[in-house]
Amino acid sequence: MRRIAVYDNFTEPKHRQQINDVAARHGFAVDYYAAPKTVPLEKRDEYEVIYGMPSPSELKTFTNLKWFCGSFAGVDAYLDDSLYPSPEVMLSNSSGAYGVTIAEHLIMVTLMLLRHEMTYCADAAAHRWGTVQPMRSIIGSTITVLGTGDIGTEFARRAKAMGAASIRGVRRTKKAADPAFDAIYTHDELDALLPDTDILVMALPSTGETKNILSAGRIALLPPTACVVNVGRGSAIDQNALVAALNGGRIAGAALDVFEEEPVPAGDPVWTAQNLLLTPHISGQMSLGYTRDRNVALFCEDLERYGRGEKPTRLVDRRIGY
Amino acid sequence: MRRIAVYDNFTEPKHRQQINDVAARHGFAVDYYAAPKTVPLEKRDEYEVIYGMPSPSELKTFTNLKWFCGSFAGVDAYLDDSLYPSPEVMLSNSSGAYGVTIAEHLIMVTLMLLRHEMTYCADAAAHRWGTVQPMRSIIGSTITVLGTGDIGTEFARRAKAMGAASIRGVRRTKKAADPAFDAIYTHDELDALLPDTDILVMALPSTGETKNILSAGRIALLPPTACVVNVGRGSAIDQNALVAALNGGRIAGAALDVFEEEPVPAGDPVWTAQNLLLTPHISGQMSLGYTRDRNVALFCEDLERYGRGEKPTRLVDRRIGY
Repeated sequence: MRRIAVYDNFTEPKHRQQINDVAARHGFAVDYYAAPKTVPLEKRDEYEVIYGMPSPSELKTFTNLKWFCGSFAGVDAYLDDSLYPSPEVMLSNSSGAYGVTIAEHLIMVTLMLLRHEMTYCADAAAHRWGTVQPMRSIIGSTITVLGTGDIGTEFARRAKAMGAASIRGVRRTKKAADPAFDAIYTHDELDALLPDTDILVMALPSTGETKNILSAGRIALLPPTACVVNVGRGSAIDQNALVAALNGGRIAGAALDVFEEEPVPAGDPVWTAQNLLLTPHISGQMSLGYTRDRNVALFCEDLERYGRGEKPTRLVDRRIGY
Repeated sequence: MRRIAVYDNFTEPKHRQQINDVAARHGFAVDYYAAPKTVPLEKRDEYEVIYGMPSPSELKTFTNLKWFCGSFAGVDAYLDDSLYPSPEVMLSNSSGAYGVTIAEHLIMVTLMLLRHEMTYCADAAAHRWGTVQPMRSIIGSTITVLGTGDIGTEFARRAKAMGAASIRGVRRTKKAADPAFDAIYTHDELDALLPDTDILVMALPSTGETKNILSAGRIALLPPTACVVNVGRGSAIDQNALVAALNGGRIAGAALDVFEEEPVPAGDPVWTAQNLLLTPHISGQMSLGYTRDRNVALFCEDLERYGRGEKPTRLVDRRIGY
């Protein structure tokens, strides 16, 4: 019988039922390995499909693997063909499962920056009744969103509903996007958008093109009122230049969920940067029930397609990285 | 010439121009008194109209006062007829100017509670890379909004756009409300709504009817997953009972911007309550440009009406309190 291995640190009984039902219809059996358990070496050649989050170095030992579906969106660690038993192995991701939770994170941290909530949190922690801070609003703001995929789109819809004056999406190539974006630009048009950006949201996959996309030169183009929010990959920002801009008051604030090195090492200047809201890479955590439901639903949808001999919808092109 | 006194701690030159223009069209001169400056005693009988935030005890000394427009929404300190030179003096407020900024506060603190952001803030302040907290979402949530005025409505619209499953508005009397509310209930139907409420938002004026509306008995009706958010008046909640419910883990969290006593005194149990997000009565601060613009626009609109001999739109009925 054809077999599927699920690297499982998130499914509930209802999810397993759902996966088992689709698998059975297409003649697959499913085994679940809950971390820290992993697939025993001697059993790995039995699996045609993997779903979940195995370590990249394990993949090669699944000698009969045909399709690996990651339960995450950022596949940058899984792009090298040499990781796989054959370059024919298909890689797909779970892009589409994280838009909602990450968009809620983005709205939250954007408002925290605009309303100086970190100051009020520090006051409250010290049992101090704070004083009024200058406040800004999403209403009337000019927002630039780098990355117009699921995350950027879900954020744009919410920011639009909250009254943003203008939301500009920036992507690799010109392509129609969700109507929540007022206009779509390409990466090479980014410089012209930065000087009037109030809020710069970065939700990019890690690729050769997105590495250091917010360079020191581009940070210098932002106005002093700009807030930078990053939930994609830390490598997209020149982190030292951003910290310098924050400490010099050359931009208003930043909310970073991703960093050049994670966890951020002790003593790193990130910890003490002015107006920097740090979260430990949690914006897209699976702990949200909706995210888990959606993740499993997307896999089941692609498993149906795979069972019919079609390619998965969220197939990754390993050369471009998403 | 008929005269208007503006108790002014927020207008910009453009706002004064706007007020002066409308005033001139209706034969009024306007004087601005920026705090801590106040109107000299001997000049008070010259003013027919006051706009801004004078102390309640001053009003009686304006012997020719006909209309007082507060630049705020909560008029509970200005309801007693004996504060005025005559019971005929009209009181109006600036309800409608604060909905946007307070709704943004509400969305922010609701997400902070659902996503355990206070824990991440404390971790970051201690230069500690945090661990994953269980996360919840506005999407799929059942929300009860006490108070369906400007603030409750602006919040409901945003929560709806973010995917709330159900938004129930609760008000004094049955009356049509904004379509962002899925249904409208009256105060006496509140008890039935509490047991399945994920998020209870309180945006009520302070009146006899709203005092202690979230009593110990009603707090006990909330499920352990409930979050309570209050931006109206502290007197609407039995604060000791709420703190006990938080410390006992009987509700999930609370975000309070208003308190029984403000500033919250040193040593008050509020400072150390579990999962309590405290802000120092800042959700509706005038520091937001949009709020100031809207506040002045509303006054000018009512000044036009007053100039034509009509009643102001936001006239307060001092017997019911809003």
